[in-house]
Amino acid sequence: MGRVYNFAAGPAAMPLEALETAAREMTCYGDTGMSVMEMSHRSKMYLAIYDETVALVKELMHVPDDYAILLLQGGATQQFAAVPMNLMTGSGRADYIDSGNFAHGALVEAGKYGKVNVVASSRDENYRAIPAWDKAAFDPEADYFYITSNNTIFGTRYAALPDTGSVPLVADMSSNILSEPYDVTKFGVIFAGAQKNIGPAGLTLVVARKDLLGRCMPITPKIMDWQKQAENGSMINTPPTYAIYMAGLCLKWLKKQGGAEGIEPVNIEKANMLYDVIDNSRLFKGTADPASRSRMNVTFVTDSPERDAEFVKQAAAKGLVNLKGHRLVGGIRASIYNSMPVEGVKALAKFMKEFESHV
Amino acid sequence: MGRVYNFAAGPAAMPLEALETAAREMTCYGDTGMSVMEMSHRSKMYLAIYDETVALVKELMHVPDDYAILLLQGGATQQFAAVPMNLMTGSGRADYIDSGNFAHGALVEAGKYGKVNVVASSRDENYRAIPAWDKAAFDPEADYFYITSNNTIFGTRYAALPDTGSVPLVADMSSNILSEPYDVTKFGVIFAGAQKNIGPAGLTLVVARKDLLGRCMPITPKIMDWQKQAENGSMINTPPTYAIYMAGLCLKWLKKQGGAEGIEPVNIEKANMLYDVIDNSRLFKGTADPASRSRMNVTFVTDSPERDAEFVKQAAAKGLVNLKGHRLVGGIRASIYNSMPVEGVKALAKFMKEFESHV
Repeated sequence: MGRVYNFAAGPAAMPLEALETAAREMTCYGDTGMSVMEMSHRSKMYLAIYDETVALVKELMHVPDDYAILLLQGGATQQFAAVPMNLMTGSGRADYIDSGNFAHGALVEAGKYGKVNVVASSRDENYRAIPAWDKAAFDPEADYFYITSNNTIFGTRYAALPDTGSVPLVADMSSNILSEPYDVTKFGVIFAGAQKNIGPAGLTLVVARKDLLGRCMPITPKIMDWQKQAENGSMINTPPTYAIYMAGLCLKWLKKQGGAEGIEPVNIEKANMLYDVIDNSRLFKGTADPASRSRMNVTFVTDSPERDAEFVKQAAAKGLVNLKGHRLVGGIRASIYNSMPVEGVKALAKFMKEFESHV
Repeated sequence: MGRVYNFAAGPAAMPLEALETAAREMTCYGDTGMSVMEMSHRSKMYLAIYDETVALVKELMHVPDDYAILLLQGGATQQFAAVPMNLMTGSGRADYIDSGNFAHGALVEAGKYGKVNVVASSRDENYRAIPAWDKAAFDPEADYFYITSNNTIFGTRYAALPDTGSVPLVADMSSNILSEPYDVTKFGVIFAGAQKNIGPAGLTLVVARKDLLGRCMPITPKIMDWQKQAENGSMINTPPTYAIYMAGLCLKWLKKQGGAEGIEPVNIEKANMLYDVIDNSRLFKGTADPASRSRMNVTFVTDSPERDAEFVKQAAAKGLVNLKGHRLVGGIRASIYNSMPVEGVKALAKFMKEFESHV
């Protein structure tokens, strides 16, 4: 069976080259006589893989030396609790922008540990746009200011970041990390589940400014204490060794594409290809506000839920799979992360026009 | 390069058959046109893999219907916090047996959330034995009673379980789960990091009696709330999808070996082979109390640290690798989990005799 074009929102398509290397090395990595999966996380051979992956994150994100790079478990959802547990210990208050389902989950979780100030929200319009914010609503004594840089379900993205002054900006970048360059120094903490733009599920990246570490609540589980993880090279216990190896293979591929700088124009080209079809269509209609459109998740509908379903079905028959929208939005969603080749998006754009011509 | 015999304590050797299947299916699973790593965790094709893995756990451990089976992240160390957060909400007290480094870590962590009663400890004798316990020291109102069924570092195992009456017994079984049959109904909760006897690192199994769920502390991170995870099929967020698939492949292999019942005599035979060499040797000396000896981790020393190191080095040259003992014990440790073939242990026993004959 040939490979399909997989538009899943995450876990998502990965570079074929990375998968082929993994297959080749599965029963024996180099001259070690064992699989990476079988290696002790304390062994020299494994630590070389680990260090290389961290170095690639550092290089591709241009992470300065005063930031710790942690490779953890539990996904972004675990960080929804870890962020307040690690940071909400000054004023005990934090600012949140409620721009989507995951942003909302994060602020509900933070409410267990301190006072949450919702600075802006687009919840009432089903998150179709990044909400406008009023700087007057910012709490100058907040322990941090929280955003979700790209909203996977609703297909929105911050076109500009809020200026939070001396309040550390914390961003859940799960769905657009490394898809475009970000200036890490603008952030206190960046975190991301790996399963969209970094590697397989089961790995979480945290990049945290070192001066923000070491202030966690006493009730913080040891494993969620960023400072302790930083002191132990993310190995308070056994890390997800194979997921880290796979992330390394994917990041090597990204490096060959020129890193975030090299892939950004490709991602813009891919997204524009679909938005152009949508904007010139009688049938398809984008669900996100144009000013907030995501480059990673393109959400749209036809004129009826039945036709949406028919579109998804016919597309799948052509090897364009996982196009069903999230139940909170309905319709169609094309997730086009770094690993989705231009050819896949071209094929989808072509099929959209074909489909419309038969309506 | 041929495969070595890998005596690592975890991550550890895995069944070659499972690795070969994984290699074959890496770029395309069945007729799906994608890797398991690329599948949405909500997709039918992935849920079939997930359900099969859970069913194998249920079958091989004989888990009754009144127990929830959770596939989580974070390793046993995360459960060190999750156990008290989920259970220490009645009397706010728990009994612990301090039988090793991980047991100790667990009770220190639990101390953040309630009152820990150390019923018995072998810490003063560097954990060379499972400590004897006095039933009079048990707290009849404890919210749970905690043990570590096998101590990886020190090479010890509970030959008999404590009778805790109506107090739920909680066991960290990371290093001997499924190596022998256990009666699940004797336990309130069993948990285990996967990376020794189940599959790759990055996956944690929790088997919990359902009537113990739903009583967690308000400060519990949502992701560590067993009840919420049980209600959501362990998918509060994206699970470690590939690690679950690999665990399924390993459990299928275990089923072919006759499950825990079938592999137990093999594990006893393997352990006895090494203990026999040790007990009949002028050079090698076991470090664990014979009555507490583990079947999974065989720990021993020669007459000097220098000779220990020489042994480890010469063994590695013969393809018997990762035999260095943990720094807390020193010497030599052979971890011989389910996946270590009898031939590997035979080769090690033979080498031990050879090595001794040259001293």
